[in-house]
Order: sequence, then C-alpha cells, then structure tokens
Amino acid sequence: MIRKDWRIGVAGLGTVGSGLLELIAERPGFAPAGGAVTVTGVSARNRRPALSDLAWFDDAAALALSPSNDIFVELIGGAEGPARQAVEAALSIGKPVVTANKALIAHHGARLAALAEANGAPLLFEAAVMGGTPAVKMLREAMVGDQVEVVAGILNGTCNYILSEMEATGASFERILAEAQRLGYAEADPTMDVEGLDAGHKITILAALAFGCAPTFASAEIEGLRTIEPLDIRLAKDLGYRIKLIASAVRSEAGVSVRVHPALTPLDHPLARVDGVLNALFIEGGRIGRIFVQGPGAGAGPTAAAVAADIADATTGARRPVFQAPAPALRAYPPLDVAHSLCRAFIRLRVLDKPGVIASITETLAETGVSIDSFLQKPIAEITGMPIVLTTHMARESVLSEAVRRMSALPSLLEPPRLIRIARI
Amino acid sequence: MIRKDWRIGVAGLGTVGSGLLELIAERPGFAPAGGAVTVTGVSARNRRPALSDLAWFDDAAALALSPSNDIFVELIGGAEGPARQAVEAALSIGKPVVTANKALIAHHGARLAALAEANGAPLLFEAAVMGGTPAVKMLREAMVGDQVEVVAGILNGTCNYILSEMEATGASFERILAEAQRLGYAEADPTMDVEGLDAGHKITILAALAFGCAPTFASAEIEGLRTIEPLDIRLAKDLGYRIKLIASAVRSEAGVSVRVHPALTPLDHPLARVDGVLNALFIEGGRIGRIFVQGPGAGAGPTAAAVAADIADATTGARRPVFQAPAPALRAYPPLDVAHSLCRAFIRLRVLDKPGVIASITETLAETGVSIDSFLQKPIAEITGMPIVLTTHMARESVLSEAVRRMSALPSLLEPPRLIRIARI
Repeated sequence: MIRKDWRIGVAGLGTVGSGLLELIAERPGFAPAGGAVTVTGVSARNRRPALSDLAWFDDAAALALSPSNDIFVELIGGAEGPARQAVEAALSIGKPVVTANKALIAHHGARLAALAEANGAPLLFEAAVMGGTPAVKMLREAMVGDQVEVVAGILNGTCNYILSEMEATGASFERILAEAQRLGYAEADPTMDVEGLDAGHKITILAALAFGCAPTFASAEIEGLRTIEPLDIRLAKDLGYRIKLIASAVRSEAGVSVRVHPALTPLDHPLARVDGVLNALFIEGGRIGRIFVQGPGAGAGPTAAAVAADIADATTGARRPVFQAPAPALRAYPPLDVAHSLCRAFIRLRVLDKPGVIASITETLAETGVSIDSFLQKPIAEITGMPIVLTTHMARESVLSEAVRRMSALPSLLEPPRLIRIARI
Repeated sequence: MIRKDWRIGVAGLGTVGSGLLELIAERPGFAPAGGAVTVTGVSARNRRPALSDLAWFDDAAALALSPSNDIFVELIGGAEGPARQAVEAALSIGKPVVTANKALIAHHGARLAALAEANGAPLLFEAAVMGGTPAVKMLREAMVGDQVEVVAGILNGTCNYILSEMEATGASFERILAEAQRLGYAEADPTMDVEGLDAGHKITILAALAFGCAPTFASAEIEGLRTIEPLDIRLAKDLGYRIKLIASAVRSEAGVSVRVHPALTPLDHPLARVDGVLNALFIEGGRIGRIFVQGPGAGAGPTAAAVAADIADATTGARRPVFQAPAPALRAYPPLDVAHSLCRAFIRLRVLDKPGVIASITETLAETGVSIDSFLQKPIAEITGMPIVLTTHMARESVLSEAVRRMSALPSLLEPPRLIRIARI
C-alpha cells in the first residue's frame, strides 16, 4: 500500500479550526491509509500573525481552488456566502471537501452531492452532527444492510443543558440561558440553538442519510424551547417524565416526518437520562433492532477529531454516494399524511380554583374525542391559580389542537393551555 | 460514478448465512456504491436442496478461489480449519473477504492483515463484534483523530442474559444456563460464552483496532461467570452495584491491559442498566471524550446486516490498513506493568457467626495493607453461616490476592473468600 502524503487547506479558524491545526501538528500520521498530513494553507476573517508559516488566503474560494492543497476543510459556517462558494469551488475541480457545516448540508446537500459525485470528489460532514460521535458514518455506512425506520435523539447540547439546569434549579428559561451564555455553552445570539434550528439542520441531514432522500430543511417541522416553563418541567416529572428537545425522523408507509420539538420522555428511558451538553441518538431498523449512541455533541476536541476522521476517510479513495442513493436519484422526503400524525400529549392548564372548572375541561376533551390517560391537579404555593396537567391517550394531532383551541375559550382559564407531545420512542 | 455489479460467495449457512441470503435476495441494491449484489455460490457442511439454483461448493477454499464471485463471505467460524484456509485462499488472490469470525481474527488477525494488505484486498469483520452495532467501524475509522485510551463494555449477550436472570429470579447459574439453552440464548456447549472466551476474542479485536496493535488473544486475561453465585449478586446490589461480565482494553503509560472478568458496576452506570442479550461499549479518548453505544449483540438479523455493510464497504474501493497501522508495523500490546495493576474489590465471605471473626478478618486486611471502604454483615435465612461482604479502597491486585490468600486460612471461614473486582469505568 503506497502511503501518499496529504496537504490540507483549512478555511475558518474558530475553536474547531484551531483544534484541528493542533491535532494535525501533534499527530501528522493520524490517517491510517495516508502518509503525513500537513496543513499548507489557511483562510479566516482575521489574519493571525502566529500562523505566518502557513500560506494565507483572504478568499476561502481561492484556498479551495489552490493546487497547494489536496483536501479542502470548510469550517466557516453558514448556509450561504463564502462557505458555500468555497465548497462549490473545491468540488467543481474534484477536490475532496470535509466540512462541519450543518446549515450548508441541510439546505444545499442534494445540489452539493450532485456536484461532488459528478466530479468524483468525496463530500464528508461527520462533524456537522454530534461532534465526535459518528452518527453520520453509522447511518451512511453501517446501516445500509437495513432499512432504517426511526432516527431520534437529543442533538443540541445547549438546549439539553438549559433543560437540565431548569430542572435542577427551578429557574426560568431566560435566567438559565443567560447563565449558559456566561459559561460559553450558548452563543451571544442563541436563536439557532433555542429555536430548534440547529437540531433541525442535524436531523434533516440524518433523515437524508437514513432514508436515501435529499435533505430538505424547509419541510422539517421545528419548535424550540422558549415556551417551556419550570412549572411544566416540575409537573411532567410528577407524572414520570422529563422534558427534552427531541429531534426525530420517522419513515412509515404514510410518509416521512422530520421534526424537532420539546417532548416528554419517560424517566427510565435512556434519552431522559442524557444530561447537560451530551447528545444521544436512537437508530432503529427492522433487522438491526435499536442502536443507541451517546457522546459529547460539540466542543473543539470532539469536533476536530470528527474532521480528522473525515480527512482520513478522504485518503482511502473510497467512492460512494454522499447520501444513501446517487445524487440524481435523491428526492425530497414523501410528506407525512396528516391523518397518520398521531401522538399522546401532555396538556398543562392554569385555572381559577372554583366548582365546575374540571368538569368543563374534561367535557371539552370528551366532545373533541380525546381520552384522558392521567390527570393531576396540584396546588403550588408560588403559582397563581390552580395548575392542572393531564396526559391523553393516542390521538390525531389535529384533534388535539382542536381540543386545545376549545379549552382556550373556557372562561376559568388564566392563560392558554400548553400542549407538549409525549415522545413515541 | 459507475455502479458495478458484485457477485458474492458465501461459506457457512447457519442462521447468519441464511439471514444474509434473505437480505440480499430482498434488497440486491443495498450497497450504495455498488450495482446489484447477487449471491452466486455457497458452501456449507450439508448441501441444501432448496438452494439448487446456486453453485454449490463442497470445499470452502474452492469457493474462495472461484472466479465466479468477487467477494468472499466466511461464516463458518472457528480459528482454524476450513474457515482459515478459505480466508487465506481468498486474500492470497486479492479477493475481498468479509467475515463474522471473531476467533479467526483474534488469533490470526495480524497474519491475515499482512496477507490482505500485500494483495490489496480488504479484510472486513464488523459482524465479529456486537452484531449490527458498528463497534469495529467506529474504532477503525471514526476514532482515528483521537488516541483511544479505554474500550470497555458488555460484549457477550449470553452472559449478560444469565446475570440478568440470576438477579431477577435468584436462581443458580446452572439453572439459568439450562433455561438459556432451552430458549436458544446459549449454545449446547456454552464454554465459549460462559468462560469469557467469546468476549475475550471480541475485546482482543477491539483493542487491536483501538491501539493499532496486533490482536494477541493469548495475552488477554480471561475469567468467566461460573463462580458467580446468586448471593454475590444479592449482596453486591445491597452495596449499590450490579455484577456484569466486563471486557476492557486500557492503554496507559504502564502498558496495555486486555481483560474479561465479572465486575461490580454502580447501579446508576449505563453499563449496569444493559439488560438481557444487549451489548454495550464505552470508547474513551483524550479529545473525543466518552462515547457510549448499545445495541443487539447477536442474532441473524443484526449480524447479517453487519455483513452486508461490510460487503457495501468492499464495493467502495477504499484502501486502508486492516487495523490502525499497516500490517508490517503491527506489534503485540506492550504488557501492563503489574505494579500498575490497581483495583478496588468486593470480597464476600461466609463465616461462623461467633465472637472475634470480624476482628480476625479486618486485622488480616490491615496487615496486608488493604483498607476497607464499606462493610456489610447480613444474616440471610436460607444461607448457612453469616455472609459478610466488604469493598476495598484502591489497592494493587497482587496485594488483594495476598489478602484473600491469608483470609482463606482463617479457621472460622466456611468456604474460601470470593473476590470480584469493582469496574473502573
């Protein structure tokens, strides 16, 4: 086996990029199939004097096109702009691309796959999902002997940290978010994380790999964390659940659903036990059964290691489609027939504590055809009004929404009812 | 991308082989990088009339050498004999080999890797460890950006089932083993499983992948399950532990230890919660942190899916070393310096209930320099004598053995003390 040396161009020198430079400098022989790996050129917004021995490119696309490197690593981020231009430039000349850019792949994965495959260049993005935990490789390579039916998990460490802390301290979402920003667990602009968009990008990519479809971020249903109150967390726990932000992709005869939303998870379920900034994933298929994997979902070390593993893969000369099917065969997911959109729900209300209130709630549910599984009425000292929570049996989501709409009109409610789905995993 | 068709020869038609034939017949297009995959030839001990449309080979090596197939799948089993001959034959002519044979790889992995690499043929064995859970791929490909320090887990479903059932029912090892044999969870000859040899083969392979060493089964320390009594399980639980058969490979500056033995695992540890026939694994490295993966460890479906994933890999043309380093560079693990072999232990005794007994035990421990962490004396109706269990602080294993040896000589003991290590994970 001839062990060729490989020259790497790295665009984007944030924590992951710096971590990668350090990793390669420390262990240039890390790629088992390759010879020595060296970084020969870099590009970033601000030139760094400490890296003066590396060729500096002001323009990431120029670095991507430069014959001074054999593999282009994109760590700029963002679905458009320089990241996209540079990746397209590299693929268009048949240069292997390794990226950690989830937004880029979730939005433009199919088009980039077509470009990559037409030019015979690998396009690898292990670091885009779950940091150093090889979710992408598992779905792209290890599960091809099966038809995956469900991929579901916790894909955003910031949200999971916030929920864990809200439970531990009883403090509000806003307060814990501010604390997470202070500790560096949340960005100054937390929108991507707390609105569920980051998890949405990731589950879009995993769904495409699992089902051999084009990643179609626009068709993912996404709901973030902002509406979750400590009261919900507390009452869910009384009923035996923990609230988690669950990303899921499910394929059935009725179509594919790709979603991110808060969900109640039974306390004894492995996902309920995933604390802090960890990520975790279930993969389920008819032959393989259920596989569960858990690990650090972000951070310079794990993410740089995932980029390095992709660089090592690029040195093997493996040729395979970017997703499960060749790019020309990639289609958007068949949308889920809404009649098949069923779930169990947790509904939390705050009502005036007077006679007839509970009867009016249970009657409204009965009229819409929703049947109650458990019911808890629990006065809490610091809460105005009487908190009530109930869980339902399985029902169509449209029916549950209608029940909530009708309950909102009841005169004794102090605020609109809150519905949180119960995870089906 | 030109999608070539691939012809497969399958030697060994047990449950996994039959599962593979079914999988390929159902989804011949499963390999994303390949065209149609078809089985063109088979070999097994007993000819099957139902497979009359396939070319039949009485000799597995003849099938391996036949130009009628492009990839040879070995599902015969056993470290020597026809399995080894056939795999060597295929590799010697540069034909890719996929095998589920853990004994073969654990015993002859380095020699076969040399043959494979010299002839430019992949040698793939995902199905040898953890069935459809991609432990091999994770270590071989996904972790190369890190230096793995620890691989530890539960790798034998039969043993885990027996321990789970012993705990649930309080029945003896022998009784549960007989029940497992009746249900098909244990072989008629259970030696490979219950003596820890099967788990030993698997951890030998994982250690080689994790550390870039030659698999060296002979240097693994292996202890099975036969000596575990329901009383141990019960008393361990009183102290907050569950007994599991843990396979581990640990690399430190003091060398590498590769081991299989029963160990006490804290009840809230993920490995303690792995029940029944599941397998689970921790992988730990300095950059990536800790990754945990769990899934079905055996069975026709998962194992056939793992074989199929390897076939798909073979169609990509990837060239990489079989283990982490090219075969000529593979060395045996550096053995662990025994002075660094430290652990905490659970020691269980059954003594005559009379004055001075406990003093004699604690004095013996103090004399050998073992300090006690917890101590429990608990009369149990159906047990003759007084059961005593204690856990120790960290000590050299040689010191712990010496303490047990000295305690064995105490006159009030009804049987020799039993020492079980406490897992360091």
